[in-house]
Amino acid sequence: MVRVTEKDAKTYAASLLRAVGCPAAEARTAADVLITANLRGVDSHGILRLPIYLKRLRLDVPGVGKLINPKPKMKVVKKQGATAVLDGDRGMGQLVGTRAMKLCVELAKKHGVAAVGVVNSNHFGTCAQFTCQAAAKGCVGLCTTHGESDVVPFGGTTPVLGTNPIGFAAPMGKFPFPLSVDMATSIVAFGKVFQAQAKGDAIPPDWAFDHDGKPTTDPNNVRGIRGMAGPKGTALSLMIDVLSGVLTGGNFGLKVRRMYHNFGQAQEVAHLMLAIDIAHFIPLRSFKRRIDELGDMIKSSPPEPPNTEVFLPGEIEHLKHRQRSKEGIDLPEDLVRQLNEHAGELGVKSPWTVR
Amino acid sequence: MVRVTEKDAKTYAASLLRAVGCPAAEARTAADVLITANLRGVDSHGILRLPIYLKRLRLDVPGVGKLINPKPKMKVVKKQGATAVLDGDRGMGQLVGTRAMKLCVELAKKHGVAAVGVVNSNHFGTCAQFTCQAAAKGCVGLCTTHGESDVVPFGGTTPVLGTNPIGFAAPMGKFPFPLSVDMATSIVAFGKVFQAQAKGDAIPPDWAFDHDGKPTTDPNNVRGIRGMAGPKGTALSLMIDVLSGVLTGGNFGLKVRRMYHNFGQAQEVAHLMLAIDIAHFIPLRSFKRRIDELGDMIKSSPPEPPNTEVFLPGEIEHLKHRQRSKEGIDLPEDLVRQLNEHAGELGVKSPWTVR
Repeated sequence: MVRVTEKDAKTYAASLLRAVGCPAAEARTAADVLITANLRGVDSHGILRLPIYLKRLRLDVPGVGKLINPKPKMKVVKKQGATAVLDGDRGMGQLVGTRAMKLCVELAKKHGVAAVGVVNSNHFGTCAQFTCQAAAKGCVGLCTTHGESDVVPFGGTTPVLGTNPIGFAAPMGKFPFPLSVDMATSIVAFGKVFQAQAKGDAIPPDWAFDHDGKPTTDPNNVRGIRGMAGPKGTALSLMIDVLSGVLTGGNFGLKVRRMYHNFGQAQEVAHLMLAIDIAHFIPLRSFKRRIDELGDMIKSSPPEPPNTEVFLPGEIEHLKHRQRSKEGIDLPEDLVRQLNEHAGELGVKSPWTVR
Repeated sequence: MVRVTEKDAKTYAASLLRAVGCPAAEARTAADVLITANLRGVDSHGILRLPIYLKRLRLDVPGVGKLINPKPKMKVVKKQGATAVLDGDRGMGQLVGTRAMKLCVELAKKHGVAAVGVVNSNHFGTCAQFTCQAAAKGCVGLCTTHGESDVVPFGGTTPVLGTNPIGFAAPMGKFPFPLSVDMATSIVAFGKVFQAQAKGDAIPPDWAFDHDGKPTTDPNNVRGIRGMAGPKGTALSLMIDVLSGVLTGGNFGLKVRRMYHNFGQAQEVAHLMLAIDIAHFIPLRSFKRRIDELGDMIKSSPPEPPNTEVFLPGEIEHLKHRQRSKEGIDLPEDLVRQLNEHAGELGVKSPWTVR
């Protein structure tokens, strides 16, 4: 592991994005979003993804163009009442998502509730980034997105759905963080399969199906993983794909393209942002007092094991953020190596050395 | 078991509700909603609940009044933009929910998306009833509600949350039913604990905590059950309580009153209804074609075990409905006995006899 500072990580990520053609402000925003995920302890959705983003930002496919557009001209292609559809023009999901939730909050402030569909986007990192953006504006924020087909529907044997996550956030009062739910609907993250591969471990028998459609414990022969919680995970995942893909006019199901394997086409991911302006229901002050009370009820359930603590969704991420912004972030050496390789090719100076 | 017809069940349920003071039209609607749950195979949320509803409709507590109000004067206490709050005046949840989703769909048709909070309501049966009501009007419908504290938050040992369900429905094209998700966020329904009690079986060690806050396999010593899918179930359940209770101004967490144990107070349950008008995003015809395509993708995953079928959420309920509206519904004798006891006291003639 290489211990790096928040500042270096943000500056370096932004420089790399600048070097592949992103305008300065956008590069900074995207770098901020990525490193914020690391600070919050969500390493799987932070700078770990920068190498693949850089690859797709650099790849110029004849007749297709850049797989991720470094200079997207995002456009509101439909706006009616409290709804809108944003075309991300193939920009980085982090930027497109931020823009979409900003619009969604504006509409919610006016109408009380708003829904913004997003098409022609890319992998956007964490849902929490956008839902917390809404919470900071006195809204309840909801966000869904879909991914490439890695998850087997309940009762089936081949993957159709993505790990399709849902995010939700709401402001709190005395707690110094928003309540923030951000969860995939698969039984585990696909990354856990890769971890088992790397360690040479078997995986539990109820995680995955192999290429013959049989349950497998071999992490090297996984075609698809199961949804969480039996039929419920598949049901939620379908709900999420209907909201993100079917409703917005984007891709869905098997049509969502693979970020790490399809280098001939843009990924064309779709999202849905939803915001509810709290003040349309009750005064924000009263909401905060009430959600604090609910938080206290949760935290007063005696913990198991004793001498631990019952955490609220978003609390561990908040504590990690506090710790890591002081102590720094540990990055795998292989990740630093991949970033430095891009840096070398792009003429960017890396703040980090690794053998 | 007693095999009964749809018609008799609806007529009998409506007569009983009439006899406790519900106006004729409301009694018919509530009976319809209840028996529809049975027809769809969701017996846990159908006529099984009528005895407790009747008890609460009849109980007149000094200084409190009827625990469920047979003649509620529901009132929209707040309406602003695409949002509203409906006070259910303690009416049956089935009636209050139907009225709330009707208003929500009207607002969604105008604004594209709408959210209606509901306070001062009661147990409302299935979420699917209301989300399918929205789907039938060309909307995507979402519905959340909370229940009395039976579920232990992840990391804790005593119950704080309800089995807090979420419902979602969307219209489909060639499939003769709406896609309909309706799920509690607890690891199992509490009813499964009662089933184990009745059979004298042990329950799995990861289901429940006893009165000392220890995991238990004894169904007779259960204080609270776990949420589904580890921390994810608790996170979703909290989201649902924030939407249903905290945001609307209703009760939440430990404050939601117990339907089967508190006969001194009204239950005061709260809900949230959300509807998105599909045509604000894409033409309904196109939505239906697209969701059908997603449905086909799911159903084309080879089933496990072979020669079975991968079902879409709402499909099994649709098949059950077709079967039971022809063949009738099986009711436990004890349930018929309880209904007939109310009937005897109320001077209603029962169509069913049981020793």
